Amino acid sequence: MPVNLTSPVAAQLLPVAGVSLGIAKAGIKRADRKDLLVMQFSEGTRIAGVFTRNRFCAAPVIVAREHLAQADEIRALVVNTGNANAGTGEQGMSDARTTCAALAGLLGCKASQILPFSTGVIMEPLPVARIAAGLPGAVADMRADNWFDAAHAIMTTDTVAKAISRQVLIDGMTITITGIAKGSGMIHPNMATMLGYIATDAAISRTLLQQMAGLACDRSFNCITVDGDTSTNDALMLIATGKAALPEVTTAGSKAYSALLAAITEVAIWLAQAIVRDGEGATKFITVRVEGGRNEAECKQIGYAIARSPLVKTAFFASDPNLGRILAAVGYAGIDDLDVDALKLYLDEVLVAENGGRAASYREEDGQRIMQQSDITIRVALNRGASAATLWTCDFSYDYVKINASYRS
Amino acid sequence: MPVNLTSPVAAQLLPVAGVSLGIAKAGIKRADRKDLLVMQFSEGTRIAGVFTRNRFCAAPVIVAREHLAQADEIRALVVNTGNANAGTGEQGMSDARTTCAALAGLLGCKASQILPFSTGVIMEPLPVARIAAGLPGAVADMRADNWFDAAHAIMTTDTVAKAISRQVLIDGMTITITGIAKGSGMIHPNMATMLGYIATDAAISRTLLQQMAGLACDRSFNCITVDGDTSTNDALMLIATGKAALPEVTTAGSKAYSALLAAITEVAIWLAQAIVRDGEGATKFITVRVEGGRNEAECKQIGYAIARSPLVKTAFFASDPNLGRILAAVGYAGIDDLDVDALKLYLDEVLVAENGGRAASYREEDGQRIMQQSDITIRVALNRGASAATLWTCDFSYDYVKINASYRS
Repeated sequence: MPVNLTSPVAAQLLPVAGVSLGIAKAGIKRADRKDLLVMQFSEGTRIAGVFTRNRFCAAPVIVAREHLAQADEIRALVVNTGNANAGTGEQGMSDARTTCAALAGLLGCKASQILPFSTGVIMEPLPVARIAAGLPGAVADMRADNWFDAAHAIMTTDTVAKAISRQVLIDGMTITITGIAKGSGMIHPNMATMLGYIATDAAISRTLLQQMAGLACDRSFNCITVDGDTSTNDALMLIATGKAALPEVTTAGSKAYSALLAAITEVAIWLAQAIVRDGEGATKFITVRVEGGRNEAECKQIGYAIARSPLVKTAFFASDPNLGRILAAVGYAGIDDLDVDALKLYLDEVLVAENGGRAASYREEDGQRIMQQSDITIRVALNRGASAATLWTCDFSYDYVKINASYRS
Repeated sequence: MPVNLTSPVAAQLLPVAGVSLGIAKAGIKRADRKDLLVMQFSEGTRIAGVFTRNRFCAAPVIVAREHLAQADEIRALVVNTGNANAGTGEQGMSDARTTCAALAGLLGCKASQILPFSTGVIMEPLPVARIAAGLPGAVADMRADNWFDAAHAIMTTDTVAKAISRQVLIDGMTITITGIAKGSGMIHPNMATMLGYIATDAAISRTLLQQMAGLACDRSFNCITVDGDTSTNDALMLIATGKAALPEVTTAGSKAYSALLAAITEVAIWLAQAIVRDGEGATKFITVRVEGGRNEAECKQIGYAIARSPLVKTAFFASDPNLGRILAAVGYAGIDDLDVDALKLYLDEVLVAENGGRAASYREEDGQRIMQQSDITIRVALNRGASAATLWTCDFSYDYVKINASYRS
């Protein structure tokens, strides 16, 4: 059960002019399951991407990077679930290219104008024949108001689809942003087993689009962890069709730039948080806020030590205010000159620890009360600077083990 | 159930001349449980220690470091289980000193000649009155052949006691080494929630003893991980009483030095592996060997990425050869110039992956067969240098979550 997250409502997902989406059941891993998505873009669309930094990155990631780097406009992307096409060597590269060529043939463009994405099991050959056979159905299904099904077609161990739309008024003109994402395990930044697609009808210069993708990602998908594992396939695509009335955004820091970046970041944060809320086996959504640090890097470092700790995460699963485990995680985060007597630890508004130990005012029943909640904030005030970082994670339950022990069966 | 590890046999644990041990039931956390250990040393005994690097180190760790640094000989140590006296601020420091003073009063020495150790729950006040009340019983119980009970008195979530003796003949003279350790969760190097005490009747110079403690620890306790959490209380003590006939070892690299270091390291490795075999919820003991690296640091870095990955560990729990997860962990270990096409992955003797993907010779049934074993070796040959590192870890099971979700209850 996801934590305070419900399935999207189809009618609330707004089409983005210039984007059409088609879905098919290609039988990639299981029969009778939506597992193939094609997104087609109108002429003039620009796309920027942020990809996994895993050295064992998947074949489709390599191919997508190549295609983005060349001069021709990207006209479509294709996503399959059920197989990651990662750890598949030369054959995997060939399979990713074959997939692009098959879709290009149907759409009348070059293979290099297609971006391929895969998610699912690693080190299994991609069933490229089944994908090719499924593509005509996906193309036939294409329409602008298909975001709801698209969000479902990219799910793996996700229990609910993740999709959201936002509209923002800039200089009196409406801009629409719709995003979908998938991911639930193997979630750790740079990036997660995560695929995210955010489209807007705004026109944004190529340089600024890439900048926005990086900035939005740093504040969202790069601030979450479920299990500390970083996937081979992660990708966030930011798509700008330029179909809206608003003139092209070409100046960083302009009012339109700032408004757009804020709205895109908001969509990215919502999707990233949705991934954590639907984290494998999650029963609690935990915000980790580290503030008063010398710089953002050390705040993130401490935040991730807390957010990754299996001992902290199992204590939250048990609703047990065994909060010394948080102090231990702060202590081993690797900040060599950290003064542990100077920091304060809060659970929501409750002061838990100060002066190197339990706060005199802390009462076990206050900790217990907060631990019963499904949304909890851990706040660490370092008192050594003015920087801060916020991360999101979930607890660690029996079901995490169950899901991952039986993933392939 | 520990993995291929049985309870020690009392008769096989050899006394070390110059060391006597006494145990008591002080009721620190539970009634009627051995939870207090005193070890007393004869005059001339030297002690070297390696401690946790956690910034939130426990009060007894700070006090033990202080006492080791001063000139007076250490005459005894005291270990309580059931409470870590960590995250306890000034009161914790005072409680650790009170414990030392109480034992010093009974033994007729200075408080600064006592080393205190605590293990158990963090951020709870140490019940120092109960410890003081228990000490006379522990002192009355002191005898040389008490290692078996001592190993039991320091257990927390351990399911079996860890103790071993070795004898080595050096220049025709017998040297005895006996070690005990505890630890099962919150296990990650630098160091583990781990207490280890290794005593020998050899005479070793102060400088060489500290050197040996560091070297033995680097090859043993600093090569294990259960859950990636580093404790606030870890300590390994190496005790040399000098009661054997062998002349004092004063030269690094001498034959006697090398023979002693090898034997001490063997005992340390056995104890460290025993901790992993008894890792919380462990059903499999996994050796991770990374070889062909440019240096040992990168081999350890890759080894720990594998050994810490919840996805890898849950796959081993399930006996599921979902081995792409190992490649993914290698890929995110942070070696930026790693050539993933050059490496080979083996499970025991079975070649699983090469050339960036599954090996042509690999058959699922071979992987499946190895995964059924309780002792398994993951071997990664990087083919980029001559360095290697070996780590030990265990799988991640329902019981890990269960044990840690209910630890305080």
